[in-house]
Amino acid sequence: MTEVKTIVLEKSVFSDNDRAADMLREKLRKKGIFLINVMSGPGAGKTTTLVAVINKLKQKFRIGVMEADIDSDVDAVTVAEKTGVKSVQLHTGGMCHLDAGMTEQGLREIGDDLDVVFLENVGNLVCPAEYDTGAHLNMTILSVPEGDDKPLKYPLIYQSCDLVIINKIDAQKYFSFDLEKCKKNVAYRNPSATVLPISAKTGQNVDAVVDYLYTAVRAYQNGK
Amino acid sequence: MTEVKTIVLEKSVFSDNDRAADMLREKLRKKGIFLINVMSGPGAGKTTTLVAVINKLKQKFRIGVMEADIDSDVDAVTVAEKTGVKSVQLHTGGMCHLDAGMTEQGLREIGDDLDVVFLENVGNLVCPAEYDTGAHLNMTILSVPEGDDKPLKYPLIYQSCDLVIINKIDAQKYFSFDLEKCKKNVAYRNPSATVLPISAKTGQNVDAVVDYLYTAVRAYQNGK
Repeated sequence: MTEVKTIVLEKSVFSDNDRAADMLREKLRKKGIFLINVMSGPGAGKTTTLVAVINKLKQKFRIGVMEADIDSDVDAVTVAEKTGVKSVQLHTGGMCHLDAGMTEQGLREIGDDLDVVFLENVGNLVCPAEYDTGAHLNMTILSVPEGDDKPLKYPLIYQSCDLVIINKIDAQKYFSFDLEKCKKNVAYRNPSATVLPISAKTGQNVDAVVDYLYTAVRAYQNGK
Repeated sequence: MTEVKTIVLEKSVFSDNDRAADMLREKLRKKGIFLINVMSGPGAGKTTTLVAVINKLKQKFRIGVMEADIDSDVDAVTVAEKTGVKSVQLHTGGMCHLDAGMTEQGLREIGDDLDVVFLENVGNLVCPAEYDTGAHLNMTILSVPEGDDKPLKYPLIYQSCDLVIINKIDAQKYFSFDLEKCKKNVAYRNPSATVLPISAKTGQNVDAVVDYLYTAVRAYQNGK
């Protein structure tokens, strides 16, 4: 079995997380690293989506992944085994989210020779939305079996993201999930969010996510 | 459309939630009310399960339901329309869990002429587990599309519950979900938890949940 390094995060020392997040974002800009914060509820497919996307995006960029979890290292091992990119596990010690200070602890471990770092946040639609991690791009994954009403119930996470991926679209016929209604519910919370329906399992429309992220990283690298 | 009362919860005044929860539990015992705390991640099927169970259990007991959400009242309306039992909506104002003080605010609204009150907690596998609501029974719903590894990733919620329902078992053939592995993962966190696989949608094995709860409420009423 692949061994990955596990870092037990310490509580952040910063009282002002927003300021710490801005400082981290600027520090990463100087290093040329683009940080992507990936959020969702438990089991929406964050890890499977990351594996599918990274296996295409790694041809263009040097990529690292930080997998946050309360316990266990199954996700970091999965990513490392299935993509070959550098992967570290972050243990939050029971905490329900990551903040900028915790993210920085992980970044110190993963190193600087990277273009893109994915941060897989704790599976939770409430708390992660309340803490700026210092990321340059926030994405949320909603999966078909969860239902098209989630944006109505968890406002902040949809308000605070740039990209909403609707995953497990291959399972749509087995669930009463209305894609158009879901898009409207996302737009109600955040009219400027991009919505991309995919199946990370079958690969359907994963290229759209890859293209979206490629464009975002290139714009960042070109200082736009 | 059915109208249900919405209560905007205030932050609890108690500094010691465990003590407040014990006091609430005792107060409810004197009134003969059995409080059931229902937890899960977003979209695991808490509301659908409650509707299926309540429509059978309401023949035996007087039932009320408190639906907690950050925003929206879709769940309380659904329960009221589909079961006819008394239902109130609790808004947590962005908070990621309920504690005993917040639960008591809801109970004041729902009234005393009841045998059983279901509290549908915020959809979240992390924070609700950390706060005793004062319930006499804690149940967690895990759904097949979320994956069989969830007990490894969210330890506390499985450690703190009496009953684990594995929902959406009708969708098992579409997902790589190993039921026996899932049961082992639950037992690893909590060997004494009862595990019941069901489909709230098709009705498969819902009777097992009804029987389990019927026995628990009867034992409580008989002072056991």
